[in-house]
Amino acid sequence: MLRLLRTSATSGTFLKCLKSTRSETINFLAHDRLCLVVTRNGFASGTQIEETAKRYPNLKRRTFEKLSEKDVAFFENLLPGRVVTEKSDLEGANTDWLRTCRGSSSILLRPKSTSEVSSILKYCNERKLAVVPQGGNTGLVGGSVPVFDEIILSTQLMNEINQLDHLSGTLQCQAGCILANLEEYVSDYNLTMPLDLGAKGSCHIGGNLSTNAGGVRLLRYGSLHGSVLGVEAVLADGEVIDCMSALRKDNTGYDVKQLFIGSEGTLGVITAVSILCPQKPKFSYVAFLGCKDFQAVLQIYQQAKIHLGEILSAFEFMDSASMDCVKQNLNLKSPVSESPFYVLIETGGSNGSHDEEKLNQFLEKEMNSGTIQDGTVATDSVKINNVWGLRERMAEGLIIDGYNYKYDISLPLTRFYNLVEDMRKQVDGSATRVVGYGHVGDGNLHLNVTSPEYDDKLMKLIEPFIYDWVREEKGSISAEHGLGFKKRNFIYHSKSRSSVDLMKRMKSMMDPNGILNPYKVLPDND
Amino acid sequence: MLRLLRTSATSGTFLKCLKSTRSETINFLAHDRLCLVVTRNGFASGTQIEETAKRYPNLKRRTFEKLSEKDVAFFENLLPGRVVTEKSDLEGANTDWLRTCRGSSSILLRPKSTSEVSSILKYCNERKLAVVPQGGNTGLVGGSVPVFDEIILSTQLMNEINQLDHLSGTLQCQAGCILANLEEYVSDYNLTMPLDLGAKGSCHIGGNLSTNAGGVRLLRYGSLHGSVLGVEAVLADGEVIDCMSALRKDNTGYDVKQLFIGSEGTLGVITAVSILCPQKPKFSYVAFLGCKDFQAVLQIYQQAKIHLGEILSAFEFMDSASMDCVKQNLNLKSPVSESPFYVLIETGGSNGSHDEEKLNQFLEKEMNSGTIQDGTVATDSVKINNVWGLRERMAEGLIIDGYNYKYDISLPLTRFYNLVEDMRKQVDGSATRVVGYGHVGDGNLHLNVTSPEYDDKLMKLIEPFIYDWVREEKGSISAEHGLGFKKRNFIYHSKSRSSVDLMKRMKSMMDPNGILNPYKVLPDND
Repeated sequence: MLRLLRTSATSGTFLKCLKSTRSETINFLAHDRLCLVVTRNGFASGTQIEETAKRYPNLKRRTFEKLSEKDVAFFENLLPGRVVTEKSDLEGANTDWLRTCRGSSSILLRPKSTSEVSSILKYCNERKLAVVPQGGNTGLVGGSVPVFDEIILSTQLMNEINQLDHLSGTLQCQAGCILANLEEYVSDYNLTMPLDLGAKGSCHIGGNLSTNAGGVRLLRYGSLHGSVLGVEAVLADGEVIDCMSALRKDNTGYDVKQLFIGSEGTLGVITAVSILCPQKPKFSYVAFLGCKDFQAVLQIYQQAKIHLGEILSAFEFMDSASMDCVKQNLNLKSPVSESPFYVLIETGGSNGSHDEEKLNQFLEKEMNSGTIQDGTVATDSVKINNVWGLRERMAEGLIIDGYNYKYDISLPLTRFYNLVEDMRKQVDGSATRVVGYGHVGDGNLHLNVTSPEYDDKLMKLIEPFIYDWVREEKGSISAEHGLGFKKRNFIYHSKSRSSVDLMKRMKSMMDPNGILNPYKVLPDND
Repeated sequence: MLRLLRTSATSGTFLKCLKSTRSETINFLAHDRLCLVVTRNGFASGTQIEETAKRYPNLKRRTFEKLSEKDVAFFENLLPGRVVTEKSDLEGANTDWLRTCRGSSSILLRPKSTSEVSSILKYCNERKLAVVPQGGNTGLVGGSVPVFDEIILSTQLMNEINQLDHLSGTLQCQAGCILANLEEYVSDYNLTMPLDLGAKGSCHIGGNLSTNAGGVRLLRYGSLHGSVLGVEAVLADGEVIDCMSALRKDNTGYDVKQLFIGSEGTLGVITAVSILCPQKPKFSYVAFLGCKDFQAVLQIYQQAKIHLGEILSAFEFMDSASMDCVKQNLNLKSPVSESPFYVLIETGGSNGSHDEEKLNQFLEKEMNSGTIQDGTVATDSVKINNVWGLRERMAEGLIIDGYNYKYDISLPLTRFYNLVEDMRKQVDGSATRVVGYGHVGDGNLHLNVTSPEYDDKLMKLIEPFIYDWVREEKGSISAEHGLGFKKRNFIYHSKSRSSVDLMKRMKSMMDPNGILNPYKVLPDND
């Protein structure tokens, strides 16, 4: 039987267990690093993370120049009061959010304008100093932190909203604007950002573009390659590429802005963004369902596409191991009875009674056909946020286990969950847990293995096993997280040699000295 | 008062005037060239069109090799029975659909496979023979026909549908598939193509990608940069770039496929396509409205975004001069009383009664507020196609005037229609007509000036006036048609010098001999 959260006592209990709203959770997640360190098992007392250069002894520093006092003086003159060199102040920016990568940069620069970014890069290019661009530093593949001693170029002070055209929905802003702040800003005009992800309380829109961030709204609003209208970026030599357009359509010449979307700061540094914001749905409902097997999850998805159609805005799944993780590590409770699989469906529409009717008819049909074992529907924003918390706090729950072996895979839907089952057999007994969750609507599986601390033996069981498995199924080894530092050498598992050769030629053309985010995206010389 | 076409006698009369359904019209439009020649005023007796090389005497043929008998023999051996050299058989492929450009190629090649395309290009690159790729040849900027004697590489025999994944909606096919055929194919699985345009009965999906075609569904499904999942393309040197992916998300390395979308065949020849097909709306309604001024058009658009929200799938407008054109030249009749402006709104949804309720409530509200003067709603497919015919047969109506000066502009909505009014003043008395119509939802204005035949004096009144006007408003001089041959030298009106420099470097890197579609997209040396 379906229980509506707004009328159900059981659900009330469930909701009380969640202390924070969705956005508070996220702020906690990504802003308050210290808090995370304290609560995490593996390094509860602030254990130092091994330096990347030491963990991967075969990786050699490329022949970049080393930062000199003269260089520091140049930057201090260019950015008065906005150059960080104190070691303790650099710790956060040297370490990735997952605490799996740690660089040893001795300088972080905080430009406020495109022209300052241009001056920095021009100087670094001439001096052959390597640079890592950094937004909110919420990436999951070690892409936004130095590997060795690269200069950190942070967009945190580039946070101005420049323009919003209410009628067309075009927002123009600097690259360092935080996604949640933009969402709040455009909400006032009945608009919404075309992307949404767990890290929204910290991640920068420039970083979102650089990594071609996906998230939970991709099903509804499509990829950033479609919704980004304009980009301003600075090339390695300081040249400013102005492709800022407020136009929805513009077929004048090659679509140069696409080069910067998803290239993870290796072809240029994004300094400003123009993005199309869709009309904000006036009504949003969330259903959380329990299902007996993955086949039922797929059947529900197919039916949701047909019966919810244009109001379907998210279709997520979690397996029971995922639910166990958030129950055990975050003390959350499931609003439905125990099931092998769980589905979260979100609708968004312009007419509440129409949406509710569609959703109820659909759920009743699926309950009757037996694909749904148990389910609940949330209709007000606080309860919706709480149900979302079960899915969105997964990353936070997992990190409490210690070290996370994090994989973000695209697969044909029919083979989607088999990888999780095969991985369980592969690492049998060596891991704390193996969980599968993600965006069914996008064919995007988040597969995570955890252990109390980094375990090289376990790592060797997982890789290259997982990459070979994915290649066999013509999947992608990185659906939305990017390749960054950690996955660069597995690119051939998803891309042909001729494509990668073309990528290398693009990199050489646009950054001949290779100063922009080295050791990332492209494979080591092969 | 609103009149429903399905119940209205007036509308019945109107509908009888349209002899063909929407797709029949299109087939007539683009397939049957001879028919067009006979019905067009300016060259009713099959007048020869001036050769492009003669019309633009300052344009010099670049130093490509000339086709030799040995070359022809090579191609005949590679493509037995699929090499066209008869002059009369080449007439159609040498001439653009608008009959404004005419090349003098003496050979057309019809490969069936990617490997044949690769062999052709490898040979042409080594021999320095220039090549123009050609799909359905329905482009409007002279991009798909030779300027001088380029070899025509046609995709017309590359028309196999390779795979359709019903669950995820991913279609994979060869580049020469005709858009309408793909729409018909995926319809059987309750899917729809994410783009729709007037030329769909002839245009090839490969050409759609190469020109980043927009059309009437962009408002709903976004641009091809978002909905294309994979591309296979052949570079100038014959190297095959395989970025064919059936995955909705894939962030492994640079998104190389984007290079081929919208570069009009100058960076590579697209040979296969993987595209995401959305769920086909089960119900579709069309409202055709008359409004007193353009301000009312904008007000209706703003309200439609709010009240129709997720079911709004198209929002088009025509001015009274546009309506006069299809009335006079195609003998069509308007289903609403005479008005200065007309709006066509299409909805598509999964629940007919919900959609109808939303649409009726919205229209009643707008009628009461006075923004709508008169209106009619079509609810069955034949009538819907007929109402669409008023808008989609505009190009056909205009061409009957003789020569078309065709402009496809993106502008901020507040300044959208002022250009049409200013153009009328500018060409006062020299033109047959000046009409404005297009995709309000995309900020995309189609502005057309017509005259009985090409008139250099009139042309000089229009250009560069129009481009300067658009630059002033930070618009785009080509929203969806591309630059092709006709607009290449106006690129700086919409793009910065640094962007164009980067484009030139991309071209040099990917096609160092410049054999692919020369004299197109990029400006002549400056």
